[in-house]
Amino acid sequence: MKSNRITAVLGIDKPIISGGMVWCSGHRLASSVSECGGLGLIGAGSMHPETLEEHIVKCKAETSAPFGVNLPMFYPQLDEVVSIIIKHKVPVVFTSAGNPALLTPRFKEAGIKVVHVVSSTKFAIKAEAAGVDAIVAEGFEAGGHNGKDETTTMVLIPAVCKAVKIPVIAAGGIATGAQVVAAMALGAEGVQIGTRFALSKESSASEEFKNRCRALAEGGTMLTLKNMGNIRMVKNDLYERIAAAIDRGASQEELKEIVGAKKSKLGIFEGNLTEGMLEIGQCATLIEKAESVEDIFKDIETEYNEVLKRL
Amino acid sequence: MKSNRITAVLGIDKPIISGGMVWCSGHRLASSVSECGGLGLIGAGSMHPETLEEHIVKCKAETSAPFGVNLPMFYPQLDEVVSIIIKHKVPVVFTSAGNPALLTPRFKEAGIKVVHVVSSTKFAIKAEAAGVDAIVAEGFEAGGHNGKDETTTMVLIPAVCKAVKIPVIAAGGIATGAQVVAAMALGAEGVQIGTRFALSKESSASEEFKNRCRALAEGGTMLTLKNMGNIRMVKNDLYERIAAAIDRGASQEELKEIVGAKKSKLGIFEGNLTEGMLEIGQCATLIEKAESVEDIFKDIETEYNEVLKRL
Repeated sequence: MKSNRITAVLGIDKPIISGGMVWCSGHRLASSVSECGGLGLIGAGSMHPETLEEHIVKCKAETSAPFGVNLPMFYPQLDEVVSIIIKHKVPVVFTSAGNPALLTPRFKEAGIKVVHVVSSTKFAIKAEAAGVDAIVAEGFEAGGHNGKDETTTMVLIPAVCKAVKIPVIAAGGIATGAQVVAAMALGAEGVQIGTRFALSKESSASEEFKNRCRALAEGGTMLTLKNMGNIRMVKNDLYERIAAAIDRGASQEELKEIVGAKKSKLGIFEGNLTEGMLEIGQCATLIEKAESVEDIFKDIETEYNEVLKRL
Repeated sequence: MKSNRITAVLGIDKPIISGGMVWCSGHRLASSVSECGGLGLIGAGSMHPETLEEHIVKCKAETSAPFGVNLPMFYPQLDEVVSIIIKHKVPVVFTSAGNPALLTPRFKEAGIKVVHVVSSTKFAIKAEAAGVDAIVAEGFEAGGHNGKDETTTMVLIPAVCKAVKIPVIAAGGIATGAQVVAAMALGAEGVQIGTRFALSKESSASEEFKNRCRALAEGGTMLTLKNMGNIRMVKNDLYERIAAAIDRGASQEELKEIVGAKKSKLGIFEGNLTEGMLEIGQCATLIEKAESVEDIFKDIETEYNEVLKRL
């Protein structure tokens, strides 16, 4: 894989970044991805500050390569977490779910690279103006929290690449080497892969969750809760209850009661497949077996080169 | 652009097919696309049998190159239309919205190539078993009628290509040369382009419709009427009324009353932008100016070659 602006700015060999996914992206997944030459992310979204610090320390012990933290900006103890990230000189922070102007200057002053995650061209332009180093543009097919516009990766990436000068990382629906080539063709200089790494051996998700997702049939996930964060999840019992409530015109309050609290932990980490919220992307249907991060890198690179040769 | 199984089976120079779109795809658009080396389709969905026959006759007079008819199989006078297509030896038929086993044998006996449009891997396998020559796999980002699974082009194409041996044409979200390369990277051997040709000078849609679609902001279309055919349309007044009714849990009967009849004709052909149903794909946001079919082919080919070189 060619070096480009993304490999240069992140200091990595291969423009492949793992998603910072709640209950999946701990130090083990992050350091494994970084050791393979990509950029591994620790997902702060599901960690208390002290847990995050522990994962950062362990990740640094496991790899000397650059790694990052994904930080959703609705994080309750945001200041504390920012201090931890700066104290440990985490090389890169991916910010999401908030205003990119909020933390970018502070991280940049500390010598930390900042990448902001967006789901629209409008927010990409805003992130560039806030001074971030790169953008993740994430399409509708991605798992978990998603944009309101429902723009797919195929349409979003060319639009974002046309609108900003900084390099763009494509996310949403990307799991295979062919899809990496497709993302590069659309103008991206890197890819963020969530689902495939969420289902890897090094992911901290439960085996129950991983097996359920690997067995998904096409159409097995759906974007729902459209006024409550837009979440793509497996169509399990919890989903069906949410969908039925939406169909009968339930209020936000009723929906909140059905969704309840800590359902992602229950589903992804604890493996409760009926009551938990099983956040995963559409491309789970392309993944059939348990793989190590190293296997995934090898497979992607092999297919990437085969596809380029074919084209 | 390289020749491949799609150019061979359809007898064309370039693996670019125009969508057979209601109120857009008349003989003028179809013959222009075929004259440029692609495969132009006449959209039978919005034509009475005698109108379709007229368009077929005119298209044959305008080009000696192969062209096709797109035939949604819920067409009321299906038998009559099949006879017209066979009588005039239309080289290719694209069937959609129905069982591919229904008409494929009859067309094949008449020496007509058959391509079937699907939105899922399951239906792709079914179409292959019915003996069609190729498949169009259409993703969630496409305009107009769409699949229930909401699988995007980025995820659908690799899944379908893995499941069938016959060649696959990618559709949904494809308007530019970069997107054609992306589709080919995903395993497609051809592309079907709807939106960009719907907004071309040769499309029979109204200028009002074309201008409205070219001015669309990101997120300006939405897939709605999920239990009534799944239709992607512009978020105009009609859409907002439909969405509000769905939000309050309206019944199918109420929705049918709001949608009413002939709303696609009203919007696309007659240019009523508030009351009409403006069916168009997400990639309308990538199209800004009025272009001829020839301009579109030149632009796509130039970008296609640039992107291949860059990769």
